[in-house]
Amino acid sequence: MRPPISLARNVSRALAVVCMMGLLAAPVGANSAGRLAFDFDTGNAIREVAIPAQHDLFLTTVSASDVSLVLRHTVMLNNAWFDATAPYHPTAVGVASRLGRRPPEERVTHRQRNIAILYATYRLLNSQLPQFRQQWREMLLSVGLNPDDNSQDLTTPVGIGNRAGNAVVASRLHDGMNQLGDEGGRKYNRQPYADYLGYVPVNTADTIRDPARWQPNVVTTGNGIFRVQEFVTPQWSVTRPYSYRSPAEFTVPPPANSDPATNPGGYRRQTDEVLAISAGLNDQRKILAEHFDDKFRSLPTTVTHLADTRGYSLDQFIAHNFLVNMASFDAGIATWHFKRRYDAVRPFTAIRYLYGNRAVTAWGGPGRGTVNDIKGSEWRSYMNTADHPEYPSASATICAAHAQASRRITGTDQLGQTVTVARGTSVIEPGITPAADLTLGPWHTWTQWSQECGQARLFGGVHFRDAVTAAQTLGTGVGDRAHAFVVAHLEGRAGPPS
Amino acid sequence: MRPPISLARNVSRALAVVCMMGLLAAPVGANSAGRLAFDFDTGNAIREVAIPAQHDLFLTTVSASDVSLVLRHTVMLNNAWFDATAPYHPTAVGVASRLGRRPPEERVTHRQRNIAILYATYRLLNSQLPQFRQQWREMLLSVGLNPDDNSQDLTTPVGIGNRAGNAVVASRLHDGMNQLGDEGGRKYNRQPYADYLGYVPVNTADTIRDPARWQPNVVTTGNGIFRVQEFVTPQWSVTRPYSYRSPAEFTVPPPANSDPATNPGGYRRQTDEVLAISAGLNDQRKILAEHFDDKFRSLPTTVTHLADTRGYSLDQFIAHNFLVNMASFDAGIATWHFKRRYDAVRPFTAIRYLYGNRAVTAWGGPGRGTVNDIKGSEWRSYMNTADHPEYPSASATICAAHAQASRRITGTDQLGQTVTVARGTSVIEPGITPAADLTLGPWHTWTQWSQECGQARLFGGVHFRDAVTAAQTLGTGVGDRAHAFVVAHLEGRAGPPS
Repeated sequence: MRPPISLARNVSRALAVVCMMGLLAAPVGANSAGRLAFDFDTGNAIREVAIPAQHDLFLTTVSASDVSLVLRHTVMLNNAWFDATAPYHPTAVGVASRLGRRPPEERVTHRQRNIAILYATYRLLNSQLPQFRQQWREMLLSVGLNPDDNSQDLTTPVGIGNRAGNAVVASRLHDGMNQLGDEGGRKYNRQPYADYLGYVPVNTADTIRDPARWQPNVVTTGNGIFRVQEFVTPQWSVTRPYSYRSPAEFTVPPPANSDPATNPGGYRRQTDEVLAISAGLNDQRKILAEHFDDKFRSLPTTVTHLADTRGYSLDQFIAHNFLVNMASFDAGIATWHFKRRYDAVRPFTAIRYLYGNRAVTAWGGPGRGTVNDIKGSEWRSYMNTADHPEYPSASATICAAHAQASRRITGTDQLGQTVTVARGTSVIEPGITPAADLTLGPWHTWTQWSQECGQARLFGGVHFRDAVTAAQTLGTGVGDRAHAFVVAHLEGRAGPPS
Repeated sequence: MRPPISLARNVSRALAVVCMMGLLAAPVGANSAGRLAFDFDTGNAIREVAIPAQHDLFLTTVSASDVSLVLRHTVMLNNAWFDATAPYHPTAVGVASRLGRRPPEERVTHRQRNIAILYATYRLLNSQLPQFRQQWREMLLSVGLNPDDNSQDLTTPVGIGNRAGNAVVASRLHDGMNQLGDEGGRKYNRQPYADYLGYVPVNTADTIRDPARWQPNVVTTGNGIFRVQEFVTPQWSVTRPYSYRSPAEFTVPPPANSDPATNPGGYRRQTDEVLAISAGLNDQRKILAEHFDDKFRSLPTTVTHLADTRGYSLDQFIAHNFLVNMASFDAGIATWHFKRRYDAVRPFTAIRYLYGNRAVTAWGGPGRGTVNDIKGSEWRSYMNTADHPEYPSASATICAAHAQASRRITGTDQLGQTVTVARGTSVIEPGITPAADLTLGPWHTWTQWSQECGQARLFGGVHFRDAVTAAQTLGTGVGDRAHAFVVAHLEGRAGPPS
């Protein structure tokens, strides 16, 4: 079942008719000073306007946080784009809104959808990142749109965009993530996204009380200030998913090798495997670890690759992107449910616990290569260890969900992506790694891509093998649910917004 | 005893002679494209070249850290400027170097000293902030100096500057602060400025085990990531001071009111005083708290004020600035010694401990004014609470040392500084506070200035009164030592560099 692709055929037929009728207008804004030369009729406002407008601001704020906060931002944007364009689709209904149906002539070109997309983006960004209000105004002004147009008129793309964006904002103000900091009844000095479930780690940064459990790591930017991690948004585990009711619908077995009290042999084996991988790092493995650690490099580029190589229509682009972002978001919620339940130890703690001041053979840190005299207490993972318990791997679950959802919506396991990485562009070993330009992939299939994503978490030294194995099953299950959810909305079969 | 001032008279006499002899050359670099119009003969390379070159980079790196790291950076810079100009002084010797004596004609104008200052700055910045190597090159190139000139020739200002800067760097690579991260024998993944004394807090961010002791606070930039403080550089307490041998030479009584087990009435009284001050905040007090919290606004501006109003010579400018930075650095070391010994509770912890979920009357957070229904657990201090135990106050000790050293070197308590603050420029309540332009001061005397600095820590909600009282005595004592140290070096009576 591939609705966007069948839609594309309809649109292209309709477009041919309208072109003959001479209805295609000239691009808006192309001739005004200081404006983008954006073509509303043929362009893609998401790729050409919305994403460029927020890219740099996003890097310094949202992407400096963690996967829960990043994915909530991106899924809400994609949700807004989906809802803003649903009224122009032959059958689709919005996820957070019901905005009616526009006549077919309004989807002959991209004009109405692009306008709706930009107003929806504007409403969402003003709620999510209000500190950049002026920049969001500039985004609309740059293409000749009026940021003060608060129309709610559902016969116009401005009204549809405004209402779609506002509906998505409203639908998630109290989704469990505590965006307003008001969960738990706090009145003063509210802290957006603060934990209200009362998670307290068993271990401290200084002391391992239980070597089976998560230990917050110490982080620094190198300027002499050291800070201790807190489990980021434990409440993601109870946040409302899009595509299923409760994470308890999924099964993830306990991490069998993470408790030395019950399984000392397994604990040592999985710890020694991480050390052996650390000692065996090469340029290819380091860059693979970095690629899949950076969710902006690894995830959206796959859809962009398909959009470019398979000639996605605007609707296909929106549907596939919403699907993979939502699959990832829902996969993260399920992952967090089990991370919170199992509260499992990270490799750096297990290595300290087993080896302490004894020498091991491992990667010796940036630029040092493999050394045989590094103390267990001095070891660090190649990638930075994220702010949450180890099991299951969030990245691997998200990749598995993203891959399964993509298989479903495209009807094939084929991917065909290759990524080229220039020498010296490593973020962990800048100027050193890779020693020569190298190529990741080719990932002929989603299966290869998802497996390498899981491997990358082992190369990065931030996970044990079991966390990656469990992730594949969990992520695939969520990917199926996410696909069914999007199809139901594309076909207009979905129930009313929650 | 005011050596720089008597020196100024000598220089001005000598200058008059040389002017008549026509020895003053044209400014260097003023006519070249892309170069600063800096006059080497009459200018001040510190104010006009060195500080502007690093100001913005400093804000994003060093000043984002904490007072120990900020002051070590600034004292080393000022030490480099002192050592680079000592050979041109009639009697002075360097602190980290012995670079001989140049003939009087080389101090007739500022030229030689300015060149030596800039090369010393260059060597120091390349060690302290090597990530900005290219910008430091630009700093020299901007005034026509060659960054590749590694001369060690003590008959030239380039050689003197290079050797002075390198000597200051070398003198402090192992001063106890762990700049290289190699203290404690760590070989791999060294962490600059990491604690190697093994400080572990008694309390965690989640649990108050002992209400007398320091509790790390939770910090966030508002993006959903929360981190727990670590006591910043506990090893500052054992770092080598300039002007005394050991912090144990000073006496600071234990904080008598900080332990509810031995003095419950005192504990409650000093906690309630902080709450009453919080409830009584007004624009004047908020802005005073912000002024003295920001060490770049409060400390160097006093010397700049005196330099401008009293017509400091270049040597006076250097001597007074080195003196106050060194007095502050040494005051901080002594403060850290007692902070580490007493490990005293901060107000936010005492308020949570005493009031928990009960309502108190206090400032309700940014923009909320005074409210009567804020829970003890929701209270926050007006200023952010720094990363170290409460007693004694570092800021108040540093102000007291800065004031006493300044009284000594100027021979008077007179200050005469006023600071104007534009409406809405608060960092805690931007756009709101102050409601109208306001004036801090006039601080007619150093005594008024230092007392208001101490008050500001109470207004900021980050200290109890006893921590400010203890600071005045301790800081004054360190200020005396620092002054004696600088005078000994200005008069050439100091022993060899340590």
